[in-house]
Parts: sequence; C-alpha cells; structure tokens
Amino acid sequence: MVPHLVPRQLVRLFRWQVACARGASVQPRTWAAASRIPSLLSPWGAMGTSRLVCRSSSSTSPCAPEVVLTQERYPVTRLPFSVVSEEDLEAFERIIPGRVVTDPEVLEASNVDWLRTVRGGSKVLLRPRTSQEVAHILRYCHERNLAVNPQGGNTGMVGGSVPVFDEIILSTAQMNQVISFHSVSGTLVCQAGCVLEELSRYVEERGFVMPLDLGAKGSCHIGGNVATNAGGLRFLRYGSLHGTVLGLEVVLADGTILNCLTSLRKDNTGYDLKQLFIGSEGTLGVITAVSIQCPPKPTAVNVAFLGCPGFAEVLQTFSSCRGLLGEILSAYEFMDAECMRLVTHHLCLTSPVQESPFYVLIETSGSRAEHDAEKLSDFLEQVLSSGLVTDGTVATDQMKLKALWALRERISEALSQDGYVYKYDLSLPTERLYDLVPDLRARLGSRAKHVVGYGHLGDGNLHLNVTSEAFSPLLLDALEPYVYEWTARQRGSVSAEHGLGFRKRGVLSYSKPPEALRLMQQLKALLDPQGILNPYKTLPAQA
Amino acid sequence: MVPHLVPRQLVRLFRWQVACARGASVQPRTWAAASRIPSLLSPWGAMGTSRLVCRSSSSTSPCAPEVVLTQERYPVTRLPFSVVSEEDLEAFERIIPGRVVTDPEVLEASNVDWLRTVRGGSKVLLRPRTSQEVAHILRYCHERNLAVNPQGGNTGMVGGSVPVFDEIILSTAQMNQVISFHSVSGTLVCQAGCVLEELSRYVEERGFVMPLDLGAKGSCHIGGNVATNAGGLRFLRYGSLHGTVLGLEVVLADGTILNCLTSLRKDNTGYDLKQLFIGSEGTLGVITAVSIQCPPKPTAVNVAFLGCPGFAEVLQTFSSCRGLLGEILSAYEFMDAECMRLVTHHLCLTSPVQESPFYVLIETSGSRAEHDAEKLSDFLEQVLSSGLVTDGTVATDQMKLKALWALRERISEALSQDGYVYKYDLSLPTERLYDLVPDLRARLGSRAKHVVGYGHLGDGNLHLNVTSEAFSPLLLDALEPYVYEWTARQRGSVSAEHGLGFRKRGVLSYSKPPEALRLMQQLKALLDPQGILNPYKTLPAQA
Repeated sequence: MVPHLVPRQLVRLFRWQVACARGASVQPRTWAAASRIPSLLSPWGAMGTSRLVCRSSSSTSPCAPEVVLTQERYPVTRLPFSVVSEEDLEAFERIIPGRVVTDPEVLEASNVDWLRTVRGGSKVLLRPRTSQEVAHILRYCHERNLAVNPQGGNTGMVGGSVPVFDEIILSTAQMNQVISFHSVSGTLVCQAGCVLEELSRYVEERGFVMPLDLGAKGSCHIGGNVATNAGGLRFLRYGSLHGTVLGLEVVLADGTILNCLTSLRKDNTGYDLKQLFIGSEGTLGVITAVSIQCPPKPTAVNVAFLGCPGFAEVLQTFSSCRGLLGEILSAYEFMDAECMRLVTHHLCLTSPVQESPFYVLIETSGSRAEHDAEKLSDFLEQVLSSGLVTDGTVATDQMKLKALWALRERISEALSQDGYVYKYDLSLPTERLYDLVPDLRARLGSRAKHVVGYGHLGDGNLHLNVTSEAFSPLLLDALEPYVYEWTARQRGSVSAEHGLGFRKRGVLSYSKPPEALRLMQQLKALLDPQGILNPYKTLPAQA
Repeated sequence: MVPHLVPRQLVRLFRWQVACARGASVQPRTWAAASRIPSLLSPWGAMGTSRLVCRSSSSTSPCAPEVVLTQERYPVTRLPFSVVSEEDLEAFERIIPGRVVTDPEVLEASNVDWLRTVRGGSKVLLRPRTSQEVAHILRYCHERNLAVNPQGGNTGMVGGSVPVFDEIILSTAQMNQVISFHSVSGTLVCQAGCVLEELSRYVEERGFVMPLDLGAKGSCHIGGNVATNAGGLRFLRYGSLHGTVLGLEVVLADGTILNCLTSLRKDNTGYDLKQLFIGSEGTLGVITAVSIQCPPKPTAVNVAFLGCPGFAEVLQTFSSCRGLLGEILSAYEFMDAECMRLVTHHLCLTSPVQESPFYVLIETSGSRAEHDAEKLSDFLEQVLSSGLVTDGTVATDQMKLKALWALRERISEALSQDGYVYKYDLSLPTERLYDLVPDLRARLGSRAKHVVGYGHLGDGNLHLNVTSEAFSPLLLDALEPYVYEWTARQRGSVSAEHGLGFRKRGVLSYSKPPEALRLMQQLKALLDPQGILNPYKTLPAQA
C-alpha cells in the first residue's frame, strides 16, 4: 500500500522530478518556435514582409529540399478558371491600394504549406483589411471567374491553405483587429485574421481563456481555426467550435456579406447558418469575423506527466482520472515511447520521468487550488498504488507547465526533423485507439524509419505518423488505403481534426456515405456555383 | 461581518428553511404533472391509445375552451398539396400495417398544441417504427405531393409540432428504442422517439446524465429536442446541442436516408451535415436517430434558492457565483416576485424563503461533495454578508432538490392556469435582461393580468410572459411588434430556444438580415423542393 499523500507531501515527492523536467527546453507552445531551427521553416508567410524575408531566406537552406509543385506530384487537372491579367491586378489595386503582392519571393511562403508537402503557383496575394474589401474582391473574382484560395496562418496539415495552381491568395493577415470584448460574459468578437496566441493573451489579461488551444497558436488565425473546425488541446474541456462559436460574418462567393455575427449564447431564429461554414475549409465562403464564447480563466492549473507500462494502463488511468478529477480535468494526452525518443533526440528535450512504453499528460484547470491539489493527489495515489502508473511528475508553475506541455506539443516538429512524414489523424473507438500502431510497425518493417502514435486520448483522436528518409511511393502504397480501410472498419473518422484539404479529399468516402457526399456537393453548388472558392479542396474531384 | 460558515454550520443554518421548502409540492420536473390537474391537458397525444383516450376525455372539460382552428385565427393560405385519399391510406397501411390512425378522437390530441393556441385539421396520423418505414412514407408523400408534419412529444411552444391544415402527422412515438450505449465514453445512440426523461433514467443508471434537461422532459422526444435545438436547464454547463450531438440519421423529403449517425467526438471529413438539421424544426428532414455525448453523472448536486432585493443584485450574485463556484456551477435561474405569486397561488407551492423582489436558483454539480459544499458555503457567506442576497435555503437530497426546482420549472404551468398567455422567449444582453418587464408593465397597465419575467440568466435568456383573462387582439397589438422591436434594438434574439414554428415565423427578420433569410430559403428549396416537410413553419411565407 502506498501511503496517503497529502498535497504538500505530494509536491515534495515529485520535486526531484520537477527539477529534472527543467532540463526540458521551455519553448512556447507554438510552431513559431520552429523559426529558431534553421532546417525548419516558420509559417509566418502571410504575416509581414520582414518575416517573409526570413522564411524566404531559410527556404534556400540546403537542409530544406525544394517542394515539388502539387500539379506535378499529384494527379490533378486545372479547372477552366480565368487567368489573372494585368487588368485584374489594376482592379485589385483600386480595391486595396498597396496591398496587392506579386513579388515571387514574398509569394513563395504563401504557395508552400508549412509541412512542405504541396506547392501552388499563385502569382498574386491580396491583403484586405475589411469585410467590405473582401466582398469587393470576391464580387470581382466571381464576375471574372477567377479562383480564390483563402489563407489564414497557413498552418494546415492537409494542404488546404495553399493554392494548387494559380489561385489568387486571399490572406486574412491584415484583418487582425479585436472588434469587441464583453468583460462579464466573456464574448469576444474579432476579425478573422487575429492570431490565436494574441487572442489568448488578450482574453487572459481580462480573466478569460480562449476555448481552443493548439500547437500552431503562434501563427494560426482564428478564422482559419473556425474554417477548419480546429480541435486541439482544450477540446476535452470546452468542446467543439460548433458549440463555442456564437456567430460568424462570412463573405459568400458572389461577394454577399452574410452577417451572422451575433454575440448571443442562444438564438433559434431559423437555421443556424454559421454551422455550415465551421469546418468547410474556405470552400463555401470566406470567414471575415468571429464571435466566440470564452470561458473564465481557471485560477489553478496543474499538469501531471506520467509513465504507464502499457496502453491498457493508459486507458484505465483515463477512467480513474475521469472519476477522481471530474470537472477539473482539462486535457488527457498520450504519447508512446517512440515519440519521446524523437523529441529528446531531435529537439534536445529531456524526459522528466523514467523510460516507459507510454506517457500521459494530464491537465487540471479549476477555480480553487487546494481542492484541485487534493483531487489530483488522490488520483495519483490511486494510479501509483495500483501500478497503472510507474513514475510521474507534477507541475503547477507556468514555466514547468510549459516544459511538460512541450514534450507533447513538439512531437510534430520532431517528426518533421526525422524525415518525410506520412501523417494520419484518426478518430477511433478509445479502446482500439493504439492497435493500428503496432499493426503498422509489423506491416512496414524496415521500410519505415519510425511509426509513432500520440494524441488526444480523451477525445478518441490518434495522431499516427510514419517517417522515412525521403518520400517513397512504395511506402505510401503500403500505408494507403490500408490505414483508411482499417479505420473505416472501426467506423472511425479518417480525419478527426485536420480536415481534408487537398491531400485527403479523396478519402472522404471512408467516413461518409454516398448520400452525404451528394448533399455536400449540392451545398457547394448552391453556395459557390462556379466553384471559385478554394477549388480542389475538401470534396473529391467530380467524375 | 458574517462569521465564516463551515459546510456543517451552513447546513444547520439553512435547516429551518429546508424544512419550510418541504411545503412545496414535490412534482416531477415534467409537463406530465399537468395530467393531474383537470383544467390542463397532458401532451401525451402521440404516445399510445390509453393516454390518448385520457387526453381526449379531458379536452371535453368545461375548463378547457375549444381551440380555434389555426386557419381561422391566423392569416394563412393552404398551399397546393394533394389531399389524402383512400388510396393513400391503403398505401400507408401497406407500409406500416395497423399503425395508420384516422380516429378523430385520437387525432384530436395531435392536432392541438399543448399550449392550446393552434389547431390543425389532419385526418391521418402515421406511427412508423423504423427509419426505413419513415423513408418509405416520405418517398410516397414526395411522389404524391402530400404535406407532412413530423411530430415528437408535441410539447413545442410555437405551434411547430402540429399541422396547420390537413398535413399528415408523422409521429416518432413508436421509434423509441435505445440503439447502443457506450459505458466508457457515455455515447448514447437511440431512435428519435425516445422520451427525454426515460433516456435520462437510462443513462443515469449507467453513471451518466443527458446533456440537456427541460420542464417538458416527461413527454418530449429526443428527436424533437434536436429538431428544435432545445436549450433548457443544463445549457449553462454542457452547452448547445450543436456541440453535444455527435451524429444524426435523417430522412430527407424525397425519402433518402442520410446516415450521419457517427459516435465520434471529432470528425472533420467534409461538411458537418447534421448541423443543418439541428434547430430546423422538421422543415429540412425528419430526424430518425440521434447520437449524443452524455457527460459523467455528478456525484454531488446542491441547489440553493435565494432571495435578492433587486435585479442589480441578481446580476452581481451571478458574477460572484461564477468566480467562487467556477466549474461546478451548473444552473443559474431567476424568477421575479410575480412568478412566485403565480406558482404559490395556482399550484399551491410554498415559497421556501422570505418574500423578495427576485429569486435565484443556483445548482452546483461536482465530483466531490465536501469540495462543492465548501465552495458553496464561501459563496453564500459572501453574498449574504454583502447584502446581495437577503434570504436563502440549500438542498442536497433528491426530494428537496426537486421541490426547489419545481418552483422554477412549474412557472409555465402556473401561467397556463392564469389565463391566456402571450409568451416571449428572448436572448438579451445580460445586464438588460429584465428591463423590458417593468417597461411592459407600465405600457400595458390594467390591460394585462400579469407581466412576469424569469429564465436562464446564465445564458442571457429571458422568458417574458403576459397573461390576460382571454385572448385579446388589442393586447396583442400593444405587445407586438413592440417586444420584437425592443429586442432588435438590443441586438437580441426574438427566439432564444423555442424556435419559430408556426406562430413566430413572421418575426425572423427582427434577428436575422435579409441575406440570411435568402440563404435559409435556398437551403429549404434544395432539401425539400416541393416544400412538403412541415409547411407554414420556421420561414416566413414567401411573397
């Protein structure tokens, strides 16, 4: 029997390990960290000239191989849109004077996705500041049959945020103003181009938090988050954007401004139109402003980082945790031993716990520190005494919290440094969440460099990643459609939170029936009859 | 200074008041309670022959005046749908043998809404048991151009659940099977006709709760809840159905079965089609099955019922409560003194606290009783010592909780006994939530019997009700469009949670711009080109 640990004893017990955790590099939870690593590109593309220069210069680094044009690597045919002419550029210049970009070096960052898997050939990037400017631009493009690629922070995982051919890039980077914040209700209304991390800072200074958080927060735009229905790290606690987004302003393909920018928690007057655009990846309209419900900022936050001897124990620890932590549980993330090896090897982070087959990161967020500490202490006592957890460390101060979170959040960055990455983002029944990982290791053998599994266990969301030295069509053939078929057999989703974008639009049918696909196509035809908005994305090419 | 109250002291302090609360009649939180009161009709209409007989007999009560036919009271013209023929009845009999109802006495209960404000003249009610039967029926109706009125528990507030003319009533009453329940994740999948209270019981026995709860739970169907995007009493804690509904099966107007009945928390494969049907009031498709995320059942529940000296204090108590109760706050309801007078007078309930201008009901739901009691105690000490609250009582056991909830939940029932009720369900900025009530009292003077305000303060949702001895067109003219214009000036919603149905479809434009209305009409035309699904509802009549 492990003796009962009162909170203070618990803190002492874990102190040596917290000290070790300091070895973990304290990186802000953002892709922006990547800009410090020469071989990785920062996705600052759309954010300003100085940063664009930075990216442009690093793209010439010998560590970063040239990204093949999408139209060369993938079987895709340009649709019969008009080609941007000199007259078009003049027209745009009249709409947004001084914010029509045609410099190829500047365009480079917006033509390539941050994973460096796809490359478009756009010749022009537009930077409107207002919804009226967006409306004016789209009305013009609609009349001229010009294709448009809406772009936020360009941090998408599936090639949805960059052009495929020569689509005009419509960037939200200069639409970055907070419109209003209600200090009692916590309702934030802002333009679509606000960077998530800046919004987080803004609302936290006022006693609230954003209901979503994700690794890319240093670059991603709230409009892009909503357009892709981003999940992320707070989903377990605050739920989906379909519940937390209160209103949207959207510019439709023909330039109509659809103002559903309400700040009301409840509004049952007719169909909830904003829902159509959440997760539509810019293919049904361009989101120009967002109204979102921010929950009160928790006054006490704890993070526990634990080692588990097997995946069964990871699942049992989750059950125990839900029972004993209840309403203060705000994240339950897991990663396997391979992930830990990658972050320690490539990013020089230090594991704060003994080597284990699995690691779990648990976050609590509550309103009363001593109550939360007591709940956490009881939980840890139970999982340690029952052998579900073999080692662990707990952090409460901001620096240590960030160090522990970095171990989980920077896996994606470590993978990028490991080689070419085949990324899968699956929703699966929790009890089978990890089964595919050992299955694939056996199937791929030495063809893969690493096969790793991590993700948001509390949401049933596995991030399955496979690396190889370079892109290999043979390895891809071994992975696909195998991974999708396996997922479909479990009635899972082949894209839990990343969306379909360009690279996954062909796999929609693994998770949706033909009747659903048909209705999606009808909706697309209704809202964007010429198909000018983010073409080649989300829906499969029509026969 | 009020001395610090430890939880046990607090319990003693409030004991005398809890004892008083026992005087409050302990009614189950359901409209079904109304069946015990002869002058009120039970909305059991669609649920079974024996209950239909019961309702039919009470409809002949001298206390229940005949409900005027909708087509006689309101300016509405029948659309050119076919009329149900003998051949149609035979066809239906082949699809669902023995479940085609034409008995006028049985139909009575399904032709009249429970508020007794509208009456349709349907001649046939169909009771399918499966989605395939619904699909077969709709395919037939689509071909024959027969209009269909989908009906759940018929507990709607806006005349959306009963026919306007002779629409075929498609009842979900016999689609009442639980399909699956996942005991780890808490995901419930069930047919649309399951009664909310029965589902609550089912999941509570398994350690979970339904994410929604409302007064009508004894009769309302989960399919109807989703179709109307019901809000209710747990909205503050668990949010909107747009976030908690994981999947839907819907039969479209042409009989196509759209199977989006996933049980995944995250699924970003294409557009989130189910969202279209949440809150569409049966006008875009018939919901036949629902997959919904149930949160873990809280192990500790407390209810505090408090008296406040003014509305400013109600608001300040809410701020204090959010700070001190944090994540365990699960409801913050308010009612004014007039509401208390109505429930004590008409329903013989007893107020558990001294007479006050306002009353607040606060519910906490947490995982650890002693922590919750301590938080509640600190909160109560603060609001009592600062004079925000002048009197209060606290309950923890099930019977007393129900007695306190009954005071709030049965206001609607008490209003129905007070006379003809003009009901308004508004979303407003919280700080102005009550302003319209005294404003209307002054405006209406003796023309109104009572003007009362109550509702879900935590969600910014006011239920404004006006009573008069009988329906008065003059009083209606004094109320409308005044109430809607007042609400629109605050950028509020003229229907927070009740929907538009038949009676409010004309006021949509007070809360939505013309561009939104146009898109709604386009969606209706896309999904139901002949307009056979719940005609005359939700969207205003087209010019």
